[in-house]
Amino acid sequence: MTGESAFLSLLRAGVSDPAARGLMDDVAVLEVSGTRLILTTDTLVESVHFLPDDPPDSIGWKLAAVNLSDLAAKGAKPLACLMNYALSGDPAWDEAFLSGLRQALDRYGMPLVGGDTVAMPKGSPRSFTLTAIGEATTAKVPSRSGAKVGDLLYITGPVGNAGAGLKLLLAGQSEPAALIEAYRRPTPCIEQGQRIVAAAHALMDVSDGLLIDAQRMASASGIAVTIDTIPTSSSLAEFAGTGTDALLAAATAGDDYELLFALPYGVEPPATAIRVGRFVSGEGLTLHLDGAHVPLPAALGYEHGT
Amino acid sequence: MTGESAFLSLLRAGVSDPAARGLMDDVAVLEVSGTRLILTTDTLVESVHFLPDDPPDSIGWKLAAVNLSDLAAKGAKPLACLMNYALSGDPAWDEAFLSGLRQALDRYGMPLVGGDTVAMPKGSPRSFTLTAIGEATTAKVPSRSGAKVGDLLYITGPVGNAGAGLKLLLAGQSEPAALIEAYRRPTPCIEQGQRIVAAAHALMDVSDGLLIDAQRMASASGIAVTIDTIPTSSSLAEFAGTGTDALLAAATAGDDYELLFALPYGVEPPATAIRVGRFVSGEGLTLHLDGAHVPLPAALGYEHGT
Repeated sequence: MTGESAFLSLLRAGVSDPAARGLMDDVAVLEVSGTRLILTTDTLVESVHFLPDDPPDSIGWKLAAVNLSDLAAKGAKPLACLMNYALSGDPAWDEAFLSGLRQALDRYGMPLVGGDTVAMPKGSPRSFTLTAIGEATTAKVPSRSGAKVGDLLYITGPVGNAGAGLKLLLAGQSEPAALIEAYRRPTPCIEQGQRIVAAAHALMDVSDGLLIDAQRMASASGIAVTIDTIPTSSSLAEFAGTGTDALLAAATAGDDYELLFALPYGVEPPATAIRVGRFVSGEGLTLHLDGAHVPLPAALGYEHGT
Repeated sequence: MTGESAFLSLLRAGVSDPAARGLMDDVAVLEVSGTRLILTTDTLVESVHFLPDDPPDSIGWKLAAVNLSDLAAKGAKPLACLMNYALSGDPAWDEAFLSGLRQALDRYGMPLVGGDTVAMPKGSPRSFTLTAIGEATTAKVPSRSGAKVGDLLYITGPVGNAGAGLKLLLAGQSEPAALIEAYRRPTPCIEQGQRIVAAAHALMDVSDGLLIDAQRMASASGIAVTIDTIPTSSSLAEFAGTGTDALLAAATAGDDYELLFALPYGVEPPATAIRVGRFVSGEGLTLHLDGAHVPLPAALGYEHGT
């Protein structure tokens, strides 16, 4: 058990409020005066969640985007957010960060209404927290559990762009721009989430990799899943090819922020959704590509806590 | 202009949502389905907001207490909170932190419903964020502005205990325990806030010092304030005496977390409240002790951002 999972076990043991969903979901669902508020918070830390030389405006964008993605995965409408900002000591850097943050907040209609600024001791890594508040658009707020045998598994878009972008940056490269941009400026699927939520048996965002997140959805639902399609973009196909190794790399890379969802067989998915698999009885994840069974890679994605 | 106030100016310039109150208040007030939600967040950073060798349970308590104090200053009822936790790398430390946090959350009825844990790079200072959500108990949510000429200024309890406790700890001392405890385990005035809120013209918590916070209330209200009483505890009086220097030290020390409030002349205050001054026309702060004018000290309290 890692330090993080030990801490999460301790945390969960003391939590009983139904709004917490046992701290097993990516959000809390707080009912106030008949409204279901969706609450989520994410912290980004330099050298953990972003690279020290990432442009500050892209870090501001990403801070908003990762929180918006958690709202998207509940089909929620963004209402407001609060930010905890550790001053960088460099006013131009702070200003660029804010401009990227604002672009994302304006694009998705989530006003910044409060927060806290702190000056960290010299030499501390930069770290930023955003807490987002949304409003559920359906009576039932889906979780990652709820998929049923026979459901089809869909995703809102291709995977692996962001993971390839990160690898390129770590290798000191800055092209292809589309892949770098996917890593630095992920797109939260707010509109798609609201279209999908009513029909989906299970819904989550893919932050840690298609394979690991599909396995988590199956496991939370108490059934098994078979993946038979790994959708990749033309930019990624051009750059990395479409061989099995390239597809496995795409399906185990994090930071995609597409939505992964289970729909009952026969329910029409949104036009842009891609069918990637189906739920079956049993447990675990199996992978078939071009009709042949493919052994699972050692790591299915990025592993960490909630 | 400090880095922090420059950043706050930038932030405020881009904020227009009424829930933000221009980022001039300690909280945001978000109206959802006829309920006024009170939103606040505070980050505590090692060596900035607590001492590296403070007991971890007291740091957990304080994280909850400073956020609860912001809810108290709106007369709000706590509903829920989210925590962003930077793992310390020491499971026993984490467990003690959680136990202190839980004591405060249980005492004031604010369940932890979500959050995010991160592993910081080695050598980073510890830092923790809590975001608290409360519900207003009155139709009008008071701010620090709103005091009127003729109003009396009250406080819920004595000042200076926490400041003296911090000084003692910095000098390597651990007695008197009541003063150390006041610094490490501040008491948010949740019940008092709910009793005061309907009648108060202006209401805030005293986090930076009685003098500076009274001056801020007067300035936000566009009038002047005269302080004629600096209430101190018997523990502090015994330890530091009640001479003018001791009183000024108490009135300019932070971390008290008492509530400071303006009541119209003739309105009965709660039994335990202490009258400390009155609002007059003009601007600024004047100080009279034992009937004599006392020149203001160079620093009125702790100065920082929001």
